[in-house]
Amino acid sequence: MEKYSPEVVEDQVRVLLTAWGMPATSAKRTAEIMTDADLAGIDSHGISMIPGYNRAVASGEIDLTATSHTVKETPSTAVLDGRLSLGHLTTLAAMDKAIEKAQACGIAAVAVRRSRHFGAAGYYAARAAEAGMIGFVMSTTRTQAVTPTRGRTPVLGTNPLAFAAPSGSGSFVLDMSTSTVAVNKLKVYEYESKPIPSGWVVDSTGEPIVESESAYRAIKDAHSGGLTPLGGTEEMSGHKGYGLAVMVQILAGAFTGTNFQNTTVADGVGHFCMAIDPGHFGDNQAFESSVHDILSTLRDEPPLDPQSPVLVAGDKERLIRAERRVGGVPLSAVLVQQIEDICAASETPFILRPSPHGC
Amino acid sequence: MEKYSPEVVEDQVRVLLTAWGMPATSAKRTAEIMTDADLAGIDSHGISMIPGYNRAVASGEIDLTATSHTVKETPSTAVLDGRLSLGHLTTLAAMDKAIEKAQACGIAAVAVRRSRHFGAAGYYAARAAEAGMIGFVMSTTRTQAVTPTRGRTPVLGTNPLAFAAPSGSGSFVLDMSTSTVAVNKLKVYEYESKPIPSGWVVDSTGEPIVESESAYRAIKDAHSGGLTPLGGTEEMSGHKGYGLAVMVQILAGAFTGTNFQNTTVADGVGHFCMAIDPGHFGDNQAFESSVHDILSTLRDEPPLDPQSPVLVAGDKERLIRAERRVGGVPLSAVLVQQIEDICAASETPFILRPSPHGC
Repeated sequence: MEKYSPEVVEDQVRVLLTAWGMPATSAKRTAEIMTDADLAGIDSHGISMIPGYNRAVASGEIDLTATSHTVKETPSTAVLDGRLSLGHLTTLAAMDKAIEKAQACGIAAVAVRRSRHFGAAGYYAARAAEAGMIGFVMSTTRTQAVTPTRGRTPVLGTNPLAFAAPSGSGSFVLDMSTSTVAVNKLKVYEYESKPIPSGWVVDSTGEPIVESESAYRAIKDAHSGGLTPLGGTEEMSGHKGYGLAVMVQILAGAFTGTNFQNTTVADGVGHFCMAIDPGHFGDNQAFESSVHDILSTLRDEPPLDPQSPVLVAGDKERLIRAERRVGGVPLSAVLVQQIEDICAASETPFILRPSPHGC
Repeated sequence: MEKYSPEVVEDQVRVLLTAWGMPATSAKRTAEIMTDADLAGIDSHGISMIPGYNRAVASGEIDLTATSHTVKETPSTAVLDGRLSLGHLTTLAAMDKAIEKAQACGIAAVAVRRSRHFGAAGYYAARAAEAGMIGFVMSTTRTQAVTPTRGRTPVLGTNPLAFAAPSGSGSFVLDMSTSTVAVNKLKVYEYESKPIPSGWVVDSTGEPIVESESAYRAIKDAHSGGLTPLGGTEEMSGHKGYGLAVMVQILAGAFTGTNFQNTTVADGVGHFCMAIDPGHFGDNQAFESSVHDILSTLRDEPPLDPQSPVLVAGDKERLIRAERRVGGVPLSAVLVQQIEDICAASETPFILRPSPHGC
């Protein structure tokens, strides 16, 4: 795959968002957040979202001219209405509000309703960690893709959950769907015509589907079978992943009045952001050093394979980020072509040219 | 197995705790909480803990005469010192404080340090739900039993996590270890000389151990291999369960200054309790009805097997509770004999007699 300078990727995203009606400063900040996902190797949540956003803007489902507003507020809580704009800046505002309130109160939560896709949940949780705090972010998702334990149809979203904590040097950043894998992982396998590992997706009789095209179709079109919750089978405690998915649905969904199963598209999705200041419980430095000890102990564990050291959540993204800052972001030719077409249709400059070295 | 009236089980626990030095009212409340686990079918956390508590009290590790005290407090946060007493009443006090503070502030968290085993985490989370709130409870654990993804030795605890929410009729109560299964499940299989499912425990080369006695020994004695984190293998996203275990370690451990890996027994374990009042974000009734909708939709999902309907977290315990309230609590002859011996050694009346009907 050709590689692209992160600056060029960001610029391409920015000009497209602007062309679609987003105010210039908002487009710049949203493009930064999206490109950060590409830099960190979370390829499913960066510039690859552009074709999907393009369709949603065209259909009026996303309103890029809107900005979020606060509908309810106390010293340690708030509710934001995302007004159906893209979720990135809304969630940034929600998390920044949670951080500010937690600085004063020790703990704070901000719920968001009527939002849209916000990219990678870890970005917002990490923001709290950068401010020396614990960050929590959850979100409902549009697509029903996950079967409950003992069920046979996809009824839950992949409902992601992110948690971050500062360690003095490099935050712990857990960013996970509550299903075994996210829908997008199937798309990647389908694209490469590779069979998927047994246990990621089951059919309506509970049997594993390993053919990636059928797996993706079962969820998207047939509404039959679906992704397994984290854990997989009931024997392997899939009911725990299922329980976590419901937890996210309750906090990010029920909490904000977001319709379960998104039967009304106009409802959008809901988010839940929380920040906790360790300084209200003890000493900030002692806390960070305690987190650092946990992470170092884990990284120093003897690995099964000497070539694959034990990592902690956030390490992989840090490694990829260092690599891509120098070597560029790999983008598939298919995606780049789609973006060229979208630029033409949007009467926007197509500036995405490979720059493999020294970007 | 013979069945015992819950009242008799509770009384037996109460008189033993009193004989070991716990003040009468504390012993009564602790016995209630422990028996509630037996009633709910969480057999590993009720009266079956008595032999272990007996050893820990005898060795001075648990101080039943101590009561927790508050070491730091703000309107929405607090830190409690458990003073190395049993964790049940300490955690009850922590959760009640969190609920009270959340009523005023919308969200509150109470961290506990220097505690001991507190039984089933779900009990305390459910208490928040009964008060119309969201409840969160996490705890570090004494035994290092779980291998990190890519690792080969048990370095993490089974670090449980509980979450509860009210629904108007029957709370959602998720109570889970962040490993595929808890250590105690291996004990049950070993006791019945049954092989354990492949994937629960791995050896130091990452291969599954299915022989239950070896599995239990690998963790307890050999400190080699261990329980898999929720998800199991890396392909099945075991790194997510591993990440959740670290999250619990950070909130219930690092937050309270609890030593990672319990290298100092005197440190005890740490807990983290949080309550959120939905009324500060929206309308309490609307929230509960929204949770109710989610749970009903899931329960009404077409099941794979018509004999096994789709459940939500908390349903199984409700069913067992209804059954055992009438039919009694089944206890193994081995456990009952151990308790008889302990009563003799503690010069305490042994009152545990079967009462299979109409208890």
